[in-house]
Amino acid sequence: MDTKIKSALSRIFFGKPIHNEEAHNQTIGKAVGLAVFASDALSSVAYATQEILLILAIAGAAAFHLSLPIAGVIILLLAILTMSYRQTIFAYPDGGGAYIVAKDNLGEGAAQTAGAALLMDYILTVAVSISSGTDQIVSVFPNLLPHQVTLCLVLIGFMMLMNLRGVKESGTAFAFPTYFFVIISSFTVGIGLWKSFNGTLMAVEGVEMIKSTIQPLTMFLILRAFSSGCTALTGVEAISNGITAFKEPRSKNAANTMIFMGLILGFLFLGITYLSVHVHALPSESETIISQLGRAIYGKGVMYNLLMAGTTIILIMAANTSYADFPRLCALHAGDGFLPRQLTYKSGRLVFSWGIIFLSVSAGALIFIFNAHTSALIPLYAIGVFMSFTLSQFGMVVRWQKIGKKLAKKDYEHESNGQEEKHHLNGWRFKQMINLLGALASGLVMAIFAITKFTSGAWVTVFLIPAMVWIFFRIHGHYKRVAKFLKLPWQKIEIKSHTKMKTLILIDDVNTGTLRMIRFAKTLGHPWVAVHVNFDKTRADTVQSKWQELIGESELVFLYSPYRLLLEPVAEFINKLKVEEKDTVIHIITGELVVQSNFSHLLHSRNARGLYDELRKIENVIVTSVPYQLHKRKNIEVK
Amino acid sequence: MDTKIKSALSRIFFGKPIHNEEAHNQTIGKAVGLAVFASDALSSVAYATQEILLILAIAGAAAFHLSLPIAGVIILLLAILTMSYRQTIFAYPDGGGAYIVAKDNLGEGAAQTAGAALLMDYILTVAVSISSGTDQIVSVFPNLLPHQVTLCLVLIGFMMLMNLRGVKESGTAFAFPTYFFVIISSFTVGIGLWKSFNGTLMAVEGVEMIKSTIQPLTMFLILRAFSSGCTALTGVEAISNGITAFKEPRSKNAANTMIFMGLILGFLFLGITYLSVHVHALPSESETIISQLGRAIYGKGVMYNLLMAGTTIILIMAANTSYADFPRLCALHAGDGFLPRQLTYKSGRLVFSWGIIFLSVSAGALIFIFNAHTSALIPLYAIGVFMSFTLSQFGMVVRWQKIGKKLAKKDYEHESNGQEEKHHLNGWRFKQMINLLGALASGLVMAIFAITKFTSGAWVTVFLIPAMVWIFFRIHGHYKRVAKFLKLPWQKIEIKSHTKMKTLILIDDVNTGTLRMIRFAKTLGHPWVAVHVNFDKTRADTVQSKWQELIGESELVFLYSPYRLLLEPVAEFINKLKVEEKDTVIHIITGELVVQSNFSHLLHSRNARGLYDELRKIENVIVTSVPYQLHKRKNIEVK
Repeated sequence: MDTKIKSALSRIFFGKPIHNEEAHNQTIGKAVGLAVFASDALSSVAYATQEILLILAIAGAAAFHLSLPIAGVIILLLAILTMSYRQTIFAYPDGGGAYIVAKDNLGEGAAQTAGAALLMDYILTVAVSISSGTDQIVSVFPNLLPHQVTLCLVLIGFMMLMNLRGVKESGTAFAFPTYFFVIISSFTVGIGLWKSFNGTLMAVEGVEMIKSTIQPLTMFLILRAFSSGCTALTGVEAISNGITAFKEPRSKNAANTMIFMGLILGFLFLGITYLSVHVHALPSESETIISQLGRAIYGKGVMYNLLMAGTTIILIMAANTSYADFPRLCALHAGDGFLPRQLTYKSGRLVFSWGIIFLSVSAGALIFIFNAHTSALIPLYAIGVFMSFTLSQFGMVVRWQKIGKKLAKKDYEHESNGQEEKHHLNGWRFKQMINLLGALASGLVMAIFAITKFTSGAWVTVFLIPAMVWIFFRIHGHYKRVAKFLKLPWQKIEIKSHTKMKTLILIDDVNTGTLRMIRFAKTLGHPWVAVHVNFDKTRADTVQSKWQELIGESELVFLYSPYRLLLEPVAEFINKLKVEEKDTVIHIITGELVVQSNFSHLLHSRNARGLYDELRKIENVIVTSVPYQLHKRKNIEVK
Repeated sequence: MDTKIKSALSRIFFGKPIHNEEAHNQTIGKAVGLAVFASDALSSVAYATQEILLILAIAGAAAFHLSLPIAGVIILLLAILTMSYRQTIFAYPDGGGAYIVAKDNLGEGAAQTAGAALLMDYILTVAVSISSGTDQIVSVFPNLLPHQVTLCLVLIGFMMLMNLRGVKESGTAFAFPTYFFVIISSFTVGIGLWKSFNGTLMAVEGVEMIKSTIQPLTMFLILRAFSSGCTALTGVEAISNGITAFKEPRSKNAANTMIFMGLILGFLFLGITYLSVHVHALPSESETIISQLGRAIYGKGVMYNLLMAGTTIILIMAANTSYADFPRLCALHAGDGFLPRQLTYKSGRLVFSWGIIFLSVSAGALIFIFNAHTSALIPLYAIGVFMSFTLSQFGMVVRWQKIGKKLAKKDYEHESNGQEEKHHLNGWRFKQMINLLGALASGLVMAIFAITKFTSGAWVTVFLIPAMVWIFFRIHGHYKRVAKFLKLPWQKIEIKSHTKMKTLILIDDVNTGTLRMIRFAKTLGHPWVAVHVNFDKTRADTVQSKWQELIGESELVFLYSPYRLLLEPVAEFINKLKVEEKDTVIHIITGELVVQSNFSHLLHSRNARGLYDELRKIENVIVTSVPYQLHKRKNIEVK
């Protein structure tokens, strides 16, 4: 495609390029921050209750009342995690994701594990949120059911585009839906509670419960239901990963946003679970719990539709949390040499494009494989989150221990960089206990999750995370080797010219392009010969006579290639030269016709390019391409 | 992939490379020639009768008796074409396809039209034959019906592989099935005729006729049935295209093979049509006519199964005719500059690989689009064949006219190259009449076909052929322009060195790779500077201090790129230099890390390659790549 068209299209889709210096303008306030980073956590109330009921249903509808104490325990866990993470936010104002905290305190292995776990969970967040969002749509419009997968993929494509434009604009774009959901769902829970105290909230009717063979209510089943409910907590770490996106004072802004988020999440989750039990909502294949709740509270009407719209949109937008964090985390890994370095490149819009694209493709693939079936994705989900919670909070425990030691030796002042940080160190032992509590709690949840969900899908995650860590370390090994080879000793180096250099001009024919190559070779002043690989003798004779008549200098070497190979005779010739004259550097000159359009590009062989790819593998070979721009030529030039 | 593994795999699939000098061994005798080039024409008896009945069915089963006179006319046409083409074979012993004959006598436009028509029909031959072949399989095994498309694609894949191995071996591989079909079908027709004279041949039972709304029997309908039946004649030209593949005396061998083919084809087609009417065979969706005939003659048993197997295999093998001719014809077009020149490259096995691959992909796509539905493909088919027949035979008429003129002037002897050719010139006027008859007959059939089948699919062909011709001429225009630009006047040229050349070394960092680039630049002896495009200042400072401390010579220019672009700052710098110093040639040196595995390849950015692609578009820029083979280095080298 023409460069101008490309750049115009790029502007339409992604906006105009952003200058390096504008980078700092790309930060966001608390209100937008809540929208960008909390939508994941908040949206999980749309499915967490349902997933608890889905497991309890195995023991029959009588077990549904257990959902309330289960939700209570999860809220307690939320409180612990919120407090625990608040401390991380102050300790790591430059971004305190599990990766950084683990690396800082527990070493590279823990960091890579935490990072791998999180990366996988970000992909799952997109897959689960988009699947669940379309579940809501399908609840309202059952005839869309056959197109759910397509719908999901279109939505992911849209998310990708928004995020390739950059975080701030998408933040603003996502603020309205998040707040719309918070208001409509809080209002619904409020009305529901009021009606329930009132005695006017009736049971929902006309729901066909999902069929399953009844099993006894065991402790294992209750723990399985609890694990499913813990998906409500996915996403609470998002803010701590994205502190740098906040306006200054960023730690304080991020920490306060975290508290807000915890309160809203707790209220909504508990409220929805209580009301679900009250209206006898049933887990069903055709209607979500939120939809049943809406019908029970409002009946089908405007308010019901608003609730469903709000829920759908927040779920779709929730994926945006991953779009904000996944590319950043990839860039961190890549910056440390554990993922391909290309992931650290910022695009014209200052975003990590490769990360965004990779996330979209992976999530799209998951949805395609699991047929947009939310409950099938849930068992893969959340283990990663809780693993990273555990590592991150253990990291904080270790950190406090170090700080405690330093404080005891009174040498912390030197390292502390100001009043604000120091004041956070008061009562470190108590704060350490909070982090320890967070670590133990999330470690326990992780173990419960992995055990109770192992056979229904968690095994994928359990095996995939170590595999990812292994790959990360292999990548790191490669980069370390390359760096070692490239490294120079820190001293003045005297660079001498090559003593012997021989130039080979690879020619296909004798034409105006050939003249340019010879001209360049002559300018260099090294001994040169022309080389022609010929497949048939007639053509060789023509080229030979042209060379004698038109050029008539130096030498034209013919390499007869009866098997019609191009590379092998040239490589053989080079090796022969290198044996004949030791330490000679071979300089190969190739010509390349540059045509304007892609159409005409297809009409010329890629031989020169393929040859170059192979020749560069030979030691002491240097390859030059003398391009000949056809479209720039008006008429024939001889010299 | 590793080069050795690649070459080993290639040997397993395609056999070992063939030397240029072995090319002449790749010719075939009459027996194998009949198998290779006649399977298309012979196999069409498997569907031609059925397609006639399918159209007549519209006027009700009573119209079926008309199939016999229709077949009679088609046999007459076959006789005319066989005689007509025999003359072409002697006139053009180096291959007398429609393309060559039209080009020689009617000019480039007619040649391209004939060629386009034939190329399209070769693709359709593969699609129709493979679809019809699997129709036979499905007649015997109805539960394979849902997998018919997959079956077709697997078969095409197999054909492609066989043909990439080369014509001789595939010729031998195909000889057995062709002869097996000829024997089993002739035997069946023989037994059928004997039983019918005998009065022991009963009507076939249990066939559900295809449903269609009954229409009156019009002349238009009869002509439509006739057109459908003319598909029996597709492929009769194949031998004239492939004369060079025959053993010497090739014209005579080819011409005799053509006569054999015409006789067998005529006998089988007439026999099958007569017997179909006799046993009251009905066009059906679930059983082919051949299958009904087999049941009527043998009952279900060993002979029936052999007949069905033979028919299936010949149909599948028929596609091989196209595999023998399509790539040759593509190479002819490409050799004249009307198709991409890559189509003239012969592979290690001396076959035109690109043509084989293109044919397979196109035919596969057609089958996929038409869901392997033979009757839906038929209306697209055969127009191309008859167009090329017409053009080729008119070409012959013109040729005889010229010969006649020359004979009259008695100056033909000078050009004639021997006794054999001259003896073919006797009675040229009579021979011209035969070709004229052939031309008129096939022109008429083409017109009937296009008109009666227009709405049911022939319109695609009617529009596609001119579109192809238009593209061919566009390609030709491009090649002519390129040739004009590249052409040198036929005189001794004195090539002078460039007077001014400036070297720019593009560096990313200062490392062992940088040393190699500088070393090369110093060897050249032109003024040089190093250039570093920086996105952020911190990194620029590091590179700057490294340069000063370790290199300390020449100059390192920093191009600050706040929008993180790579190409644009470099291009701008180059243009500035070119304005400052007119007529300077800019020589750019880039470094490239060569890593061994594809895995590690992915871990390094393609920046250098992308930059090269863009820089070569700038006038007077020469680009050199200094590769640095990482895997060959055991330890650090400084110089």
